[in-house]
Amino acid sequence: MRHAPLGSITDIPGIRVGHHQRSGRGWQTGTTVVFAPAGATPGVSVRGGGPGTRETDALHPENLVELVHAVCLTGGSAFGLAAADGVVAWLEERRLGFPVGAPDHLIGVVPVVPAAVVFDLGRGGSFAHRPDADFGRRAIAAARRSQPAWGSVGAGTGAKAGGLQGGVGTASTTVSITGDTIGTPGIDTDVVVGAIAVVNANGSPIDPTSGLPWAAQGLGLRRPSASDRARLTAALDGQAAGETSLNTTIGVVATSAALTKSEVTKLADVAHDGLARAIRPAHSMFDGDTVFGLATGDADLGHQPAAMRSTVSRQRALNQILTAAADTFAAACAHAIIAADRRGALPSYGELCPSARR
Amino acid sequence: MRHAPLGSITDIPGIRVGHHQRSGRGWQTGTTVVFAPAGATPGVSVRGGGPGTRETDALHPENLVELVHAVCLTGGSAFGLAAADGVVAWLEERRLGFPVGAPDHLIGVVPVVPAAVVFDLGRGGSFAHRPDADFGRRAIAAARRSQPAWGSVGAGTGAKAGGLQGGVGTASTTVSITGDTIGTPGIDTDVVVGAIAVVNANGSPIDPTSGLPWAAQGLGLRRPSASDRARLTAALDGQAAGETSLNTTIGVVATSAALTKSEVTKLADVAHDGLARAIRPAHSMFDGDTVFGLATGDADLGHQPAAMRSTVSRQRALNQILTAAADTFAAACAHAIIAADRRGALPSYGELCPSARR
Repeated sequence: MRHAPLGSITDIPGIRVGHHQRSGRGWQTGTTVVFAPAGATPGVSVRGGGPGTRETDALHPENLVELVHAVCLTGGSAFGLAAADGVVAWLEERRLGFPVGAPDHLIGVVPVVPAAVVFDLGRGGSFAHRPDADFGRRAIAAARRSQPAWGSVGAGTGAKAGGLQGGVGTASTTVSITGDTIGTPGIDTDVVVGAIAVVNANGSPIDPTSGLPWAAQGLGLRRPSASDRARLTAALDGQAAGETSLNTTIGVVATSAALTKSEVTKLADVAHDGLARAIRPAHSMFDGDTVFGLATGDADLGHQPAAMRSTVSRQRALNQILTAAADTFAAACAHAIIAADRRGALPSYGELCPSARR
Repeated sequence: MRHAPLGSITDIPGIRVGHHQRSGRGWQTGTTVVFAPAGATPGVSVRGGGPGTRETDALHPENLVELVHAVCLTGGSAFGLAAADGVVAWLEERRLGFPVGAPDHLIGVVPVVPAAVVFDLGRGGSFAHRPDADFGRRAIAAARRSQPAWGSVGAGTGAKAGGLQGGVGTASTTVSITGDTIGTPGIDTDVVVGAIAVVNANGSPIDPTSGLPWAAQGLGLRRPSASDRARLTAALDGQAAGETSLNTTIGVVATSAALTKSEVTKLADVAHDGLARAIRPAHSMFDGDTVFGLATGDADLGHQPAAMRSTVSRQRALNQILTAAADTFAAACAHAIIAADRRGALPSYGELCPSARR
């Protein structure tokens, strides 16, 4: 289950992903950074009841910041917010951030690095082992254009989900928007939508009836055997009997389209529909479910004059992207689960259901 | 101008304030922490166009966290968010935070430390000198019940405001709520409302006509002499001619009343009215104006049965507190300006207008 049939968020030009993690000797946590070297238009939607976040207010559509260069997803609960400090420092060293000073006399930059955390404290044995600034610095330094590792890596290293090992997953979709839709007759535009999700959910990612991930559609998995399903059911029931704990699914949905901040905010919000389909229940009071949006702006949704930019045709094109955002985020969540490895006491889906392998 | 005729946020039982700052050798910045050892019900209102914040989503009324132990106000722009890391660490060492584990088996705590920043980069000479985790740790370790220092200290060390030296100010008001209002006939309740503001504003804190702070009411200042006003006008005009830069007014409004998270959110929001009166213009795209609310819960707004808690009488009592919140926040802003010392190139109000002294 190492192959990503649905692609990766790095299929979007200008988007890179890096992980850093530590396991063993009481550790089981990490950090994942989504890096946009040329910047991206940001948005965010916080829908969980227990979020741990940083720099989300700056992303609201009415506010100043129009461009960010990185988003930090990390373990460590509120302590893990320190990982973003390392991302900020790394970006500043490269002069990437909000410019300060006159246009012809740049004094410095202020990198705005939105961040969200998952709760994985104590999963490796020590409650005191959490990502710090160095994790963030190493994660962004490791960011590459190529398909990132997924499963039990980065911010998903200590993740669990409904009695199973959680993890990081990614996916991408290409949306073809016809020229007729966006007012460029005869010239269609391909838009890439990608997602990366850190699944660390109170809810279950698995449909107990089929034994497949809720969001298995298109993943090419086979229905697991009766004996595999029985083992899976036992694991899921074990979780159901356990106490409620702090968990969270966080991620990034990105697109190659040129979107406004308001549109990226909508993108992040609709991606939560994918989360809702992939994890059941979701958005609980103990989840800090947060999705960031990024638009790199390579694909224009049509070259209408300014007065036409809010036309129905643009909204129709945007709707295609929103639909893909929800589906792609759901696929990323499913990928996280099927790619996870056993790291601690929790079984992994792949281990319980080998018969589901393609 | 060292005396606080309008009191201090520390007049609220359970509220302490600590500062840490560094000046000279390229430094001119600092951190201020409002510490509530027994916890307080939090809220936040972000109204500036360029906010730099942390853990604000957790404070929204619909979300899980009902209690925080500290709020971190700091210089350093987005870099300064690292100061909150030190506050988090200090609180964890004292087991103050969101409890993790079963009630009879506490595994650890996660301190939720909301934070907001002001832009003061380069004010001391070096763009690279900003508060880090150590600033936050030292600021909370310095927190005391007594009236805190104000003026050019803590997060106000590098502050400026409309061509003048900015700073930290505080104030408090006692609101007497009659027993008739809250359904306890014959038993009145005193509620204390306090504020602390870090004034680092693009707008001006001074009424150019009178030469007094916009929010001078009740401060007992005298109208400055014609020659002082002329010097003040020159300083204010100098700022008006300057380029727009990043600035921000941040603060905390607190009350001894027992309020819900929704009510504390409203409290923080209405405190921005005080900011709007004290700083003109305010809430610009380049300001990150953010006010946190804290309710310590010592003074009950009446002992109505649950079904009565949303009655008009409670709303009337709350309205008295909201009015005081705006006035007290405005007074805190004015205090910040009249108490500021010259630290760098900018003149201070007290230096330009000695004739305004009481």
